[in-house]
Amino acid sequence: MKSTGTQNKGRKPLYEEVAHRLSHMVDDGIFRSGEKVPSIRTMSNRLQVSINTVKTAYGILEDRRIIEARPQSGYYVCAKLPALPREPNPRPPLLGATEVEAGEMVERILRDVNDPARVQFGAAIPDPGLLPSEKLARILASELRRTADHGSGYAMGLGLPRLRKQIAKHIMRAGVTLATDDILITTGATEAVFLAISVLCHPGDTVVTSRPFYFNFLQMFRERGLKVLEVPSSPTQGIHLDALERALSRNRVSACLEVTNFNNPLGVCLAEEKKRALVAILKRHRVPLVEDDINGDLAFDGIRPGVCKAHDDTGTVILCSSFSKTLAPGYRVGWIAPGRHFEAVIRQKLVTSIASATPTQLAVAEFLTSGGYARHLRAIRKAYRAKTAQMADAVGRAFPPGTRVTRPTGGFTLWLEMPRTVDSLALYGLAREQGITIAPGRIFSTTDRFGHCIRLNAALFSEKTRWAVEAVGRMAHQLAGDGPAQDSTD
Amino acid sequence: MKSTGTQNKGRKPLYEEVAHRLSHMVDDGIFRSGEKVPSIRTMSNRLQVSINTVKTAYGILEDRRIIEARPQSGYYVCAKLPALPREPNPRPPLLGATEVEAGEMVERILRDVNDPARVQFGAAIPDPGLLPSEKLARILASELRRTADHGSGYAMGLGLPRLRKQIAKHIMRAGVTLATDDILITTGATEAVFLAISVLCHPGDTVVTSRPFYFNFLQMFRERGLKVLEVPSSPTQGIHLDALERALSRNRVSACLEVTNFNNPLGVCLAEEKKRALVAILKRHRVPLVEDDINGDLAFDGIRPGVCKAHDDTGTVILCSSFSKTLAPGYRVGWIAPGRHFEAVIRQKLVTSIASATPTQLAVAEFLTSGGYARHLRAIRKAYRAKTAQMADAVGRAFPPGTRVTRPTGGFTLWLEMPRTVDSLALYGLAREQGITIAPGRIFSTTDRFGHCIRLNAALFSEKTRWAVEAVGRMAHQLAGDGPAQDSTD
Repeated sequence: MKSTGTQNKGRKPLYEEVAHRLSHMVDDGIFRSGEKVPSIRTMSNRLQVSINTVKTAYGILEDRRIIEARPQSGYYVCAKLPALPREPNPRPPLLGATEVEAGEMVERILRDVNDPARVQFGAAIPDPGLLPSEKLARILASELRRTADHGSGYAMGLGLPRLRKQIAKHIMRAGVTLATDDILITTGATEAVFLAISVLCHPGDTVVTSRPFYFNFLQMFRERGLKVLEVPSSPTQGIHLDALERALSRNRVSACLEVTNFNNPLGVCLAEEKKRALVAILKRHRVPLVEDDINGDLAFDGIRPGVCKAHDDTGTVILCSSFSKTLAPGYRVGWIAPGRHFEAVIRQKLVTSIASATPTQLAVAEFLTSGGYARHLRAIRKAYRAKTAQMADAVGRAFPPGTRVTRPTGGFTLWLEMPRTVDSLALYGLAREQGITIAPGRIFSTTDRFGHCIRLNAALFSEKTRWAVEAVGRMAHQLAGDGPAQDSTD
Repeated sequence: MKSTGTQNKGRKPLYEEVAHRLSHMVDDGIFRSGEKVPSIRTMSNRLQVSINTVKTAYGILEDRRIIEARPQSGYYVCAKLPALPREPNPRPPLLGATEVEAGEMVERILRDVNDPARVQFGAAIPDPGLLPSEKLARILASELRRTADHGSGYAMGLGLPRLRKQIAKHIMRAGVTLATDDILITTGATEAVFLAISVLCHPGDTVVTSRPFYFNFLQMFRERGLKVLEVPSSPTQGIHLDALERALSRNRVSACLEVTNFNNPLGVCLAEEKKRALVAILKRHRVPLVEDDINGDLAFDGIRPGVCKAHDDTGTVILCSSFSKTLAPGYRVGWIAPGRHFEAVIRQKLVTSIASATPTQLAVAEFLTSGGYARHLRAIRKAYRAKTAQMADAVGRAFPPGTRVTRPTGGFTLWLEMPRTVDSLALYGLAREQGITIAPGRIFSTTDRFGHCIRLNAALFSEKTRWAVEAVGRMAHQLAGDGPAQDSTD
């Protein structure tokens, strides 16, 4: 272990390294499902690391449902998780940019969110129980009382200076230095991305992005009359840079749009070197990057990943984010750091909505100022790590053999690759009838590549909703034509 | 008077008729500036109407600064108001649609709004003192407490049902019957108009509107790559329908955008028959109407004017409005009734911002429900009527001879036509240096027709800001080269 210890270049702590190695040993079958793993003390001796390091590493593996503690007995390898989704072919015959077709599915999925009777595995909304809603509401009320105009006036142009200052401070953790006046407040990250795309692209233009990608982007491209050029993405490594390079050298592209950290839907976080390389490639081809960092605050290991914007020396990366996943989706407080496109983005904001609501900006500013945000993030990251692991485990038990599932390291979405015979649109229909929403793979690409895939929102997984995973699993069995699935036929 | 009484076809009350006739008598010089007018009793006998009718009519004339009461003496004709702006030539050589140029002016004007040190005669923002800010803030706080998720969840898709229901109820006063689900909540009326224009027009398309028109629309056309076809508008009658008809028969037009009630900037309210005719003409040419009813609740006479949407039997009128002028601009609560374009508008909303902020929707819904809105409107209409009249009077005294000014019957903007030698951009620059914002006429059209005009926001006129009107008047004198303007040269 000592030799690997010296290879450990700053970023990854030792316990992560240990957890990583043990997890590989399980993957490789060195420790098998149900088998006892060495005690903490034994492992500490064997790897020549401290007891505490192993303890922390075992804790991580427990959270990831790789091992489990059995009281008075020790640690055991959990029932084996389903395999990872297949790596895409990074060199598929390169399709040109494709026109985007209308999809009512997206609209239906987003509208279903308002139905409290449904189990919400469809949209990537956070767990209401993990939002600091009561505290935020109290802060909002108190801010309205102490603000001269009680929040009724416009936060015109850029948005509340106090909030923008706090965002600049917060995002330093991602390695990027922004001034208060580099940031503009938006109505959620959606408006941020919308403004960026509107400014960079004209109808008929082409946007490049990695597939599968967040379905509302597809709708956005469609509404703006844009074409999309899809580059394959690995479920563990993210966007294939070679394929991107190939795509850029053969097409005229107006912008690249990527969720760089805990990508939606794959959950993959681009390594720092990869972020740097991505920025370099785009710079070489003079293609601006719209970077959606919506999940950046939700790293399971608690280490805030960097952003591409940190490697941007020409101001061509437009960084977008929001507090919708961590504080309150309904507050619609997002932001954009448009770099050299600043003036154009302001003008676009003025014609799109003039300004975003003032009261919710006041509340978020105060929440960030009062210092509760870091503590809050620690709590929810842990909870989402556990939920994601538990849901993946439940999927492994409930879905047809051959189903593969991602191992996100942040955020709260799972991406499932089912046997090819399972049509995700049919599955969506069956699930919806039972009051369960899921997101069918088809809407994450303009190609038909993901017809047997689905995205699940793990944020709303709990012992109370486990039945819904089991139910959807049975439906998938049915569609796969591989089993009895008695429950749903009688 | 009896004969005119029978001509009084329902809509206009008798006291309005009386006020109207007296106002004409003043205009015609039958009663001259400073002259005493007959007492209420004498006038009642002479016109064969009740004492109360004359009393009310005199009250209206007082508010409009046409007559003034002098204690223990009676009513006198006020100092003469400046003339109305000239009627435009309804048959100018018809220009084709014009490309829209960038204008940083608009952005500057809107950003200046955040500077509390300036006298805000530029943007058409309401008087903060006439917003129920404290009450709204209390309602917001209490709504957050009693809502299950404390307002943190998405009001997805259409927006809060309770708010939409209240809006449907409220807008019945304008003669239009809408169901709760015909309405979608937006981030202010700006987003509503933006969504409508986005859905109806593709880049390169042409929008028709009457000039002068709200400058942010010009920016919107520009950002969307649209051309604009301008139809003349009368300061007393609104859009010239003949000119519109001519324009439509010679151009392919994708949409018509009009502020039908108390138009910004002219303040003119389209007569009901004219609204009906406008809808008929557009229907004949198959051109959808985007109707911005932003000022509809601000009729000085307290009679809610109708909307074109009420005459729309094919669902091609898209009605847009908001509570930004009456309740709280910073709450960003607007709405849209998209008629047959409903599904397209929802899709556009989802990609633009997913949803608007929930907390402020809760507050406005409760404000409308609890019944305070009608009472609130009564109070602010009266205040804006007085402010508008007083500012027009101050303009008459301060500006160079030959300056003409509108007599709005609702809203709170004044449109000034100055002598042709006064360049409004120069005036804007001079005023800004003195901490006063005004809106130069040039930005209300793509033509150079309004270079000697300005729009003033009367909402912020008061005895405290009268000096600013006087100061701008002196600057105008200076630019007109007609006078001493000692104050600004020493």
